[in-house]
Amino acid sequence: MSELAVRAEKLDAADELAAVRCRFVLDDVVYLDGNSLGALPANVPGRVEDVVRRQWGELRIRSWDESGWWTAPERIGDRIAPLVGAAPGQVVVGDSTSVNVFKALVAAVRMAGGGRGEARDEIVVDATTFPTDGYIAESAARMTGCTLRPVAPGDVPGVLGSRTAAVLLNHVDYRTGRLHDLPSLTAAVHAVGAYMVWDLCHSAGALPVGLDEHGVDLAVGCTYKYLNGGPGSPAYLYVRGDLQDRFDSPLPGWNSHAEPFGMRSDYEPAAGALRGRIGTPDILSMLALEAALDVWEGVSVEQVRSKSLALTDFFLECVRAYVPEGVVESLTPSGHAERGSQVALRCADAGSVMKRLIERGVVGDFRAPDLLRFGFTPLYVGFADAERAARVLGDLLA
Amino acid sequence: MSELAVRAEKLDAADELAAVRCRFVLDDVVYLDGNSLGALPANVPGRVEDVVRRQWGELRIRSWDESGWWTAPERIGDRIAPLVGAAPGQVVVGDSTSVNVFKALVAAVRMAGGGRGEARDEIVVDATTFPTDGYIAESAARMTGCTLRPVAPGDVPGVLGSRTAAVLLNHVDYRTGRLHDLPSLTAAVHAVGAYMVWDLCHSAGALPVGLDEHGVDLAVGCTYKYLNGGPGSPAYLYVRGDLQDRFDSPLPGWNSHAEPFGMRSDYEPAAGALRGRIGTPDILSMLALEAALDVWEGVSVEQVRSKSLALTDFFLECVRAYVPEGVVESLTPSGHAERGSQVALRCADAGSVMKRLIERGVVGDFRAPDLLRFGFTPLYVGFADAERAARVLGDLLA
Repeated sequence: MSELAVRAEKLDAADELAAVRCRFVLDDVVYLDGNSLGALPANVPGRVEDVVRRQWGELRIRSWDESGWWTAPERIGDRIAPLVGAAPGQVVVGDSTSVNVFKALVAAVRMAGGGRGEARDEIVVDATTFPTDGYIAESAARMTGCTLRPVAPGDVPGVLGSRTAAVLLNHVDYRTGRLHDLPSLTAAVHAVGAYMVWDLCHSAGALPVGLDEHGVDLAVGCTYKYLNGGPGSPAYLYVRGDLQDRFDSPLPGWNSHAEPFGMRSDYEPAAGALRGRIGTPDILSMLALEAALDVWEGVSVEQVRSKSLALTDFFLECVRAYVPEGVVESLTPSGHAERGSQVALRCADAGSVMKRLIERGVVGDFRAPDLLRFGFTPLYVGFADAERAARVLGDLLA
Repeated sequence: MSELAVRAEKLDAADELAAVRCRFVLDDVVYLDGNSLGALPANVPGRVEDVVRRQWGELRIRSWDESGWWTAPERIGDRIAPLVGAAPGQVVVGDSTSVNVFKALVAAVRMAGGGRGEARDEIVVDATTFPTDGYIAESAARMTGCTLRPVAPGDVPGVLGSRTAAVLLNHVDYRTGRLHDLPSLTAAVHAVGAYMVWDLCHSAGALPVGLDEHGVDLAVGCTYKYLNGGPGSPAYLYVRGDLQDRFDSPLPGWNSHAEPFGMRSDYEPAAGALRGRIGTPDILSMLALEAALDVWEGVSVEQVRSKSLALTDFFLECVRAYVPEGVVESLTPSGHAERGSQVALRCADAGSVMKRLIERGVVGDFRAPDLLRFGFTPLYVGFADAERAARVLGDLLA
């Protein structure tokens, strides 16, 4: 047994989150793709079965009240809230991340009094963003009469000004795993009187976000990565409490009406986070997510962050030890303050390397043209997993 | 046994769809709320369990390819297509009805070359529409720079003109159950060069729609009513084949990109119906819907329509026989050409009457201020159910 394997064993033995792994359905694969689709929490199948057989099959329409279907978007939002540093009443679950980006960005422009013919007519967006955010930002700009200004995240402070209406940034870059400085970027956006929208897809559930603490205006995120909600589980929207009365949704469906069963032809938005709802929520996916959030019982995001950094540090150390020098290059920042919970390695022929890794039981993913991406979910990934992944990679690249 | 009960027995015995009832999980309740939430198809629980335990739990990320998750929106769209009279390749499943109304209406205005500063600057909407359509239409109008013109459906032809960009109508009115004349209204809209969007929530799965035959431009609908997809199951969008290249979505997410995994910063829309997709599809809800569509095996919409009319005719006859004269008034048109698959009865104290009906095992729903709504899903409702529902109602109102 190598020195690194021995250390991995010791680290796992001392890991206070090690016991959480049994809350998931896992096998002998090293699953480092939880930043794409989180593993199945063990309690989800039973809960989903109850939702289908009893709530839908037996209670049918009564479940909208009796099984709490109607209030699920806010209730589950309040379960996510502590994971992103939000007090209750500010997060609502539903729709896809893309749709929530649209709601948030258009609402941000409106809060800023910006748009067509107004002084504030620019939306600034991360030029390296996950593509959907950029496409949706372009549509939001077009529909509000703004200009879209894509810039590298580091250049954002330099382009902010009196024309800026809203800024959309990713907390963690989906490719490189770089963590952006949420507090200082938010402050810079506020300093020019603009509104800040954060996309938390690659940070929520992996590290502390501190939405309330840092005065973030709006945020969105998905729930199928580090929150393990299942394939395509609904996304969420955070609207800071004191901004909710001014949240003017471009998608005002009947579910966000003050009196949804009044069937009134005039739209009067509800108070609170549920103003971010649109139509009938997808209950099966939503209640699977609710069950999935049970794995956080007794776990703090700070513990997760601490283990995440130790895991990625250790993985990088193992990669340096096992992979011949110069064959891979880490795009993931070495400084903890700039690192999310994944490691991205640039590598020749990365697509085929990832294929062979998967065949050998190490599941990460490939991002064109040349990236191997390894996500570390501290709730179920251990140090021996990290060591094994690096060792198999080293074998393949030797 | 009353004469009507005897007739009900004979009608059930002669019903060629009677055997389809065993494809659903039902009990001794008369379930007349399938126009709100369809009953559970018996094969759904097993399928959902497989999706959760095997596809998500064991295959995890591989299921996006291996279990056909990625292509589910188009594949399931093609299952719905024949039910609404559409050839394959024109229907895509995903998001809520409200979100699809937004996509369709904005795209329709753009197809018409309408909007802010253009000659075509009006969106016409059914003033009696289900509220969410009206709210979303108002937002679509605001964001495209159009004026919203709400009119009663009968008055639509009279307000159409060179300023009309798009028209949004419900095929069947959610309150009264009135069926609007899709062919002639579509033709009238086309005659002025505008684009027609139909909301099929209360007609798809209950009667023939004939989207292709009647040259409809765009259509949307939910899948949790007569399509039995489950609570909040995803909605669908129809874009006529020859219009797809001009479908310019206001919600262009990465799932509708020509090359979604190219991760390109410029948006290039995919060809075909999948241009109507946005973000990652909610797989659990979507695959439950796919299983639910199996109940249509060997069933034609024409058979369903024929039974639906016979059922609502018979129910109205039973109501006339059992309920004291003048106590209820049917808002549902007596002419078949104007009737959907529900019966709406106006009744004093309707909320409390419905409560007592439900206590007595007859489940319909109440719509404020004074409506009892009874939906007839021919796949699982029989004539004895209709007779019993009217009889219990008569007892309560005697």
